Amino acid sequence: MSTAEFEEIVTDWQDEARHPRFERRYTELVYQPMVELLAFLRANEFKTYIFSGGGVEFMRPMTEAAYGVPPEEVVGSTIETRYEVRDGEPVLMRLPEIDFIDDEAGKPIGIHKFIGRRPIAAFGNSTGDREMLEWTGAGSGPRLMMLLFHDDDEREYAYGSAKGLADPMLGAFPPSLMETAEEKDWIVASMKDDWNQVFAFES
Amino acid sequence: MSTAEFEEIVTDWQDEARHPRFERRYTELVYQPMVELLAFLRANEFKTYIFSGGGVEFMRPMTEAAYGVPPEEVVGSTIETRYEVRDGEPVLMRLPEIDFIDDEAGKPIGIHKFIGRRPIAAFGNSTGDREMLEWTGAGSGPRLMMLLFHDDDEREYAYGSAKGLADPMLGAFPPSLMETAEEKDWIVASMKDDWNQVFAFES
Repeated sequence: MSTAEFEEIVTDWQDEARHPRFERRYTELVYQPMVELLAFLRANEFKTYIFSGGGVEFMRPMTEAAYGVPPEEVVGSTIETRYEVRDGEPVLMRLPEIDFIDDEAGKPIGIHKFIGRRPIAAFGNSTGDREMLEWTGAGSGPRLMMLLFHDDDEREYAYGSAKGLADPMLGAFPPSLMETAEEKDWIVASMKDDWNQVFAFES
Repeated sequence: MSTAEFEEIVTDWQDEARHPRFERRYTELVYQPMVELLAFLRANEFKTYIFSGGGVEFMRPMTEAAYGVPPEEVVGSTIETRYEVRDGEPVLMRLPEIDFIDDEAGKPIGIHKFIGRRPIAAFGNSTGDREMLEWTGAGSGPRLMMLLFHDDDEREYAYGSAKGLADPMLGAFPPSLMETAEEKDWIVASMKDDWNQVFAFES
């Protein structure tokens, strides 16, 4: 499949699929505090990047509308592609081979590869963000490291396994991450206690 | 060696080394028309990227001062790195393994991977740029593709092997590239005939 064909499938799905609990498009399930933080940073001359373990070609079609982040400021996991000329038209064919996993140690590796300088601030919500926050915090001068703890099963979800909350299969926030945050003075925001509004569509 | 140690070697070399013919720092050997074109595009709300076959960690320390292009808008060839915590400090260690070659078909592959959208305009000067210009030209709407032909041995160098000029070991402009440019209406600029000024330091 070509990258163009894949993008069409992604945008169709993002247009049609609805989240079973919130009954909204997945592209509408963006956190209002995240949108505000990104806008605040950009208003203060920061460049804002999304670094996610998700496939980059799955995210890029929706990040500009949802977060104000253009495709070139979105880094994710990638697969290998091959350049071909088919009937005179160049195409990039997706290959069944992993190129890069943007998670855990892959995040600082990706930051170095895709950006080439160290972040001033980094925000995460799972154990896959630990190395990115470590790498950010090791820079000279003031740095800001922050984690979101999903502890609000009324408005969204509650999982850990930190603080005795359930252990999810993906994106866990284990007790060891909470300990690291305390040791290194990373700020942990509680969705339940610190967020007045969760989703952008609630306003 | 860590990425930080490598960067120190690069910046020391860029500060100390002089080109044997022009007796200038290599970072001063930037083309005035290229600097003007980049500035013109940015003044008209384009983002300008450097896509080079050279090692990205060799280019990034000098591109902002020389071309006004920040590290995150420079894409080049990369090697694998490994994230490690040494004496409590995170480092990225350079590994003796190629990650990505940003040349020939690697250029459109890299554009898709690092930027995620197709260029409006692309400029090159060798056979390694052919696929990037093809990929750019295959987009819908107006696109600009341009090649520089180094045919000025008085002010710089003259090589081909197009138009009977000498064949260099690297960065060649072969007759087949000249034919493709004619077929596809890519503009070929002659350094000798079209450039009033070659290097920025001449002004």
